[in-house]
Amino acid sequence: MFTIGIDYGTNSVRALVVRTSDGAELGPAVVDYPSGHQGVLLDPKDHHLARQHPGDYLLGLEKSVKAALAQARKAKGFDARKVVGLGVDTTGSSPIPVDKNNRALALDPRWEKNLAAQCWLWKDHTSHREAAQITALAAKHRPHFIAKCGNTYSSEWFWAKIWHALNVAPKVFAAAHSWVELCDWVPSVLAGVTDPVQIKRGVCAAGHKALYSDEWGGLPDKEFLALLDPKLADLRDRLYIKAHDAGEAAGTLCTSWAKTLGLPAGIPIAIGEFDVHYGAIGSGVTEGTLVKVIGTSTCDCGVVSAAKTVADIPGICGIVKGAILPGYYGIEAGQSAVGDIFKWYVEGLLRDVKLHAKLTAEAAKLKPGQSGLLALDWNNGNRTILVDQLLTGLLVGQTLYTTQAEIYRALIEATAFGARAIIERIREYGVPIERVVCAGGIAEKNPLLMQIYADVTGCTMLVAGSSQACALGAAVSAAVLADAHKDFASAQRKMTRLKPGVAYKPKAANQTIYNQLYALYRQLHDSFGGVNQSADLSNIMKDLLAIKAATHA
Amino acid sequence: MFTIGIDYGTNSVRALVVRTSDGAELGPAVVDYPSGHQGVLLDPKDHHLARQHPGDYLLGLEKSVKAALAQARKAKGFDARKVVGLGVDTTGSSPIPVDKNNRALALDPRWEKNLAAQCWLWKDHTSHREAAQITALAAKHRPHFIAKCGNTYSSEWFWAKIWHALNVAPKVFAAAHSWVELCDWVPSVLAGVTDPVQIKRGVCAAGHKALYSDEWGGLPDKEFLALLDPKLADLRDRLYIKAHDAGEAAGTLCTSWAKTLGLPAGIPIAIGEFDVHYGAIGSGVTEGTLVKVIGTSTCDCGVVSAAKTVADIPGICGIVKGAILPGYYGIEAGQSAVGDIFKWYVEGLLRDVKLHAKLTAEAAKLKPGQSGLLALDWNNGNRTILVDQLLTGLLVGQTLYTTQAEIYRALIEATAFGARAIIERIREYGVPIERVVCAGGIAEKNPLLMQIYADVTGCTMLVAGSSQACALGAAVSAAVLADAHKDFASAQRKMTRLKPGVAYKPKAANQTIYNQLYALYRQLHDSFGGVNQSADLSNIMKDLLAIKAATHA
Repeated sequence: MFTIGIDYGTNSVRALVVRTSDGAELGPAVVDYPSGHQGVLLDPKDHHLARQHPGDYLLGLEKSVKAALAQARKAKGFDARKVVGLGVDTTGSSPIPVDKNNRALALDPRWEKNLAAQCWLWKDHTSHREAAQITALAAKHRPHFIAKCGNTYSSEWFWAKIWHALNVAPKVFAAAHSWVELCDWVPSVLAGVTDPVQIKRGVCAAGHKALYSDEWGGLPDKEFLALLDPKLADLRDRLYIKAHDAGEAAGTLCTSWAKTLGLPAGIPIAIGEFDVHYGAIGSGVTEGTLVKVIGTSTCDCGVVSAAKTVADIPGICGIVKGAILPGYYGIEAGQSAVGDIFKWYVEGLLRDVKLHAKLTAEAAKLKPGQSGLLALDWNNGNRTILVDQLLTGLLVGQTLYTTQAEIYRALIEATAFGARAIIERIREYGVPIERVVCAGGIAEKNPLLMQIYADVTGCTMLVAGSSQACALGAAVSAAVLADAHKDFASAQRKMTRLKPGVAYKPKAANQTIYNQLYALYRQLHDSFGGVNQSADLSNIMKDLLAIKAATHA
Repeated sequence: MFTIGIDYGTNSVRALVVRTSDGAELGPAVVDYPSGHQGVLLDPKDHHLARQHPGDYLLGLEKSVKAALAQARKAKGFDARKVVGLGVDTTGSSPIPVDKNNRALALDPRWEKNLAAQCWLWKDHTSHREAAQITALAAKHRPHFIAKCGNTYSSEWFWAKIWHALNVAPKVFAAAHSWVELCDWVPSVLAGVTDPVQIKRGVCAAGHKALYSDEWGGLPDKEFLALLDPKLADLRDRLYIKAHDAGEAAGTLCTSWAKTLGLPAGIPIAIGEFDVHYGAIGSGVTEGTLVKVIGTSTCDCGVVSAAKTVADIPGICGIVKGAILPGYYGIEAGQSAVGDIFKWYVEGLLRDVKLHAKLTAEAAKLKPGQSGLLALDWNNGNRTILVDQLLTGLLVGQTLYTTQAEIYRALIEATAFGARAIIERIREYGVPIERVVCAGGIAEKNPLLMQIYADVTGCTMLVAGSSQACALGAAVSAAVLADAHKDFASAQRKMTRLKPGVAYKPKAANQTIYNQLYALYRQLHDSFGGVNQSADLSNIMKDLLAIKAATHA
């Protein structure tokens, strides 16, 4: 038996055929989104804007699944008739305005060119004002709404984006019958759902991005939404009453798409989850394991048994029951930019894509602290633990002799310090982290970064066995649904693995220096992040010089 | 009649033949120092070290003066017999260890290769520990010593360097009979002085760098020096009793050098001054005029009538009677790196010397505040107003879209903010600054920088008429000494001028934005510089983003 995981990333979609008995991967097939700049529609006047054309998703769906099947057919024993389920994961929060028939508005020629009618990609930050207002209104009127998402509602999220659309593109808002998260929309399309209110939406997106909780009866009440705008209160009826965890199916494959893809009609489609959540499953997340998906940005996922009580953790994006695994609280944290910072530095600033390898090699020769530099990893704001998009990058310690490689290493270290801040915060609130499993291209290809992460966090860094952990997790979910395994735990045991023989262990000598640097990082973090409003930073430059001098001693 | 100004810079020496009647310049002739990296002896293990081989000075002296004379001979009416005086300016504090015969120690084959036996170039910061100790000892025992140099003794200065030599190279210290500032040594060589104690030393170097003042009887007393090291107290007797202003001659040209150079023996040699001090004279410094010599670093010079009372100004490097013009207090301030920061960024970091022009053109198209960036200009420490070498650079406001040109402009702006901090501090203490005259290559060639300086400081920026303001000032001093003019004021009126038709006036709209940015700069400056030890920096990133957003509105 086989299942297919379909993973919608920021620039491309990939389909992965997986054998349910042992997790063997037959694929994957990757299709780049054809529209915009690397699949993203931009506005040169506003760097906060990032949209995506929904037509790209459908085109990519057909092309990637067909290509994956074509590849799988080369493997012994494969037959498309043996595909027993599909799972989908996507970026998010990436809401799409749809019409009464669940057609994405941008697929209608009238709205095709309108940026507000597209999918509002996760990294779109145009709604930071609305997010701040939601935070303020919730703090005043419904503090429990935001207590579970770190007391701050983000500009990346569902309501802020829809409210911003209402504010800047009222005609688009009026034309939209409903708004659907990309992770719910693709399964609904595969299932042939033609009424958006009938879509079986996942609690992952609902709980993490739309203030949904069974505790208060689902989505935010109308009275609260009316405080934002009465039109958002009206919209509530056209969204959903209940959201579901991965214990249930989003639907079954409709005849039309079955024919298009060459798959059996009626096979179950897993509830849609965000890429990192299925990625966590595909990386073997269990209680005590933190999964870090390290890419352009980073998402950190953990789970805690739903039988336990989990306190709200300040600054953690969300603690949502069933968001990752059924029967567990899902805990999500993240850094708004990691790979994107290195990419900006090397390609945007130094303008030479080939320098990545050279600078990595040079940076690897440097000792911790040797550069005298310290950076904040906030070039794209801070998601966890400050939840503030209006923060920016910082570099301190430059002399007239600072080199390219020194800055490169300082930027890697900055993201490691950000990762440590997250781990420390989660632990502070009683959630144990016993091991860290990393997934994503950077985790696989950059031993320097992995060693720095180990040295900075003090945790051994393991690497997920699959390069397609997100798609694999979606395929795991489909396999459980199709009864190929009795539950997620046994499906994960059979279908997921760690990269054999790879474990980056903290080196004591490096840890000592990084503890000193992390203390300085926290001084900057707390001061520029507004945690400490009477900071003494007079030691920063001198301490960096002293640490640097000590590495030469 | 003609005089010759000889200007010893960091990488080369230039000689300029000047007509005393109208300041017409016949030359200049430039000779690069042959030793080390661009004339500077470095230590790859310690970026604080910068030395220079004294042999280069003698070689450069002969070559440059001969070449200048050869050029001058092409001009109508010139004859070497009409040369009536010589003036010398140099970098400083650049002390040279010499033997009993006033021979630089490094000219002795025994010491030739020893880095401690060379000239300790102004930008050598190896003695920062000694400087800090001198500051602490003076604060406790002789607070008046350092009150005139901003309450902080710098690692760039005379006693710190000599004490460091004693600490790290005791044999060199023992071999040195005396130590002579480069600006005093070259005139003494030309005058044929063979006993270092007989050298007529200038109050410029003495007052600004060696804690010399007539108020307390010259150099620091032996009791104080013994607190540093008894050997420094012993050295005092082998230095000098009295230092002189430019009202007196350092000596007359000795027969031997007259013959070597092809000049009349016995003509007067002006008292040596630092390059920027003679540069201030060559740029027309008078009471109310601030002269900024903008190069790798920046020196700011002003004068106040010695008939007035001038308060000590915290953070200002030195207020020394007679240091620039006889009869006036000389006030010196400066920034440790200006051109050097741009050079580091473009050549060191971006690794493309050709980018200077391109980035200047791109940066010129940006509006103030548009980049969202803010930098501190401390890559080489801060000379004025914090007097702290153990400070480093800082850049804040980076996003994933920050460009090369945006950072370039932010670095220019940072140096402009540093310049404003100096002007504001001097004015706060009652010294009027009515006009600013800039000299140096950057002032002449970079209209973007000059306009930013005007917009940031609110002062009209004028440019010195001579590209060789330092050498011209030395030639003016020689002309007064040779009675070609009755005093400095009339010599300056005849021999110096502004660049005609050039005046960068502040633009009101830009000033408004730069006032906002300067307030943020001062927040960073005061926090990282230790002025404010309970700072709230939570607004910095948000304010920068708001200023940026406003430029797009």
